[in-house]
Amino acid sequence: MKKLVLIRHGESLWNLENKFTGWTDVDLSENGLREARMAGKILKENGFQFDIAYTSVLKRAIRTLWIVLHEMDLMWIPVYKSWKLNERHYGALQGLNKEKTIEKYGEEQVHKWRRFVDVRPPELTKDDPRYPGHEFKYHDLNESDLPLTENLADTEKRVLQEWNENIVPNLKNNKRIIISAHGNTLRALVRYLDNISSDGIADLNIPTGTPLVYELDDDLKPIRSYYLSLDGKLSKDVMPKHI
Amino acid sequence: MKKLVLIRHGESLWNLENKFTGWTDVDLSENGLREARMAGKILKENGFQFDIAYTSVLKRAIRTLWIVLHEMDLMWIPVYKSWKLNERHYGALQGLNKEKTIEKYGEEQVHKWRRFVDVRPPELTKDDPRYPGHEFKYHDLNESDLPLTENLADTEKRVLQEWNENIVPNLKNNKRIIISAHGNTLRALVRYLDNISSDGIADLNIPTGTPLVYELDDDLKPIRSYYLSLDGKLSKDVMPKHI
Repeated sequence: MKKLVLIRHGESLWNLENKFTGWTDVDLSENGLREARMAGKILKENGFQFDIAYTSVLKRAIRTLWIVLHEMDLMWIPVYKSWKLNERHYGALQGLNKEKTIEKYGEEQVHKWRRFVDVRPPELTKDDPRYPGHEFKYHDLNESDLPLTENLADTEKRVLQEWNENIVPNLKNNKRIIISAHGNTLRALVRYLDNISSDGIADLNIPTGTPLVYELDDDLKPIRSYYLSLDGKLSKDVMPKHI
Repeated sequence: MKKLVLIRHGESLWNLENKFTGWTDVDLSENGLREARMAGKILKENGFQFDIAYTSVLKRAIRTLWIVLHEMDLMWIPVYKSWKLNERHYGALQGLNKEKTIEKYGEEQVHKWRRFVDVRPPELTKDDPRYPGHEFKYHDLNESDLPLTENLADTEKRVLQEWNENIVPNLKNNKRIIISAHGNTLRALVRYLDNISSDGIADLNIPTGTPLVYELDDDLKPIRSYYLSLDGKLSKDVMPKHI
């Protein structure tokens, strides 16, 4: 049996301010730091062990991972960072308040942008300071890989590239893996692992700072999955809602 | 010109207790945390930038690096961790108080153990709880690589393996590199880079938490090296004392 743990970063400063974040590199809030510490403690108390860790190149995911590894006394394991695990790029919505965006565009439009697999928010222009091509962090990327906006399908495509190229070989080699990432990158991965339809994924929301454990068979098909709750019990009541 | 920065971890809890540490995985002291933050700030203020980082698998070096990368807003760069950058293994001296060891064995003997290139402290036995073969962290190593004790030449050998196999190719590829490691691993590297004799190295002491900058030519020969001091000036007065 292969073991995989997914963790969405703890609450960020912009979760708190209710802003669209995407690739904006905001840090964890005090509450997010606390969530990360708690996740690390729960994993340790339940005897989890990891051989390899993956994270995005965004600090809210990296810091969540660092705190978890600190709590588990696993600071020494290899950590691979990839932009392909970054949060969905939210295009020209990045930095906007979600409430105000709903006031301006209407609830239905914003719901489509947030939850529909194939709907993209408005694009950034390349002269926009928010365009990732202006950041040194992304200087090695091809221009075609630098998003102006993304829908969930776009995000899923790059997440699955990282999954297939780098994570799958290590899982098949029986490495126990933790992935620290973001709401939409983890939704994309869960959608793939659990074979969830485009309609079904709209209702799937992954909570911050809560380890989501997958036990996989030799073909990496899920045997079972569960959130690891505070009391260390398997909390099936907070399982992802699947269609 | 190639840029390389070496940093010895900040003060650890056992530096503070004046114990032989070696591969014992003790954390930074409060002062060590402060030293690491200061090193990161100084590097940032002086416009340093890194593409790749290396560290040992010991948490005092990893945490120093994490704090430096946090201060420099470089949490996203690749970090490679290798046991070959671990502190010199101090054999059966690990965990002993340095003063008490001097009382027991005499100052001359302890000086030889600490400073002579070819003198090894007493060996651990394999049933000693301090033997690294008992730690999961080292389960991938060949038994012949697991030290029972080391002299500086032994440490130098594995440090230079890491240097030649992994660090040199990236330096030649113009990657700007930071190495967070330990007193004796960095002494070994400085001895190699500056071509210091066995006699000369005895007096070389690298201070904790102070960036040591090397500017190297295309053949990776040092053009100059200096410690980056608090006021951001090049402090030649604290240069390593070479013969």
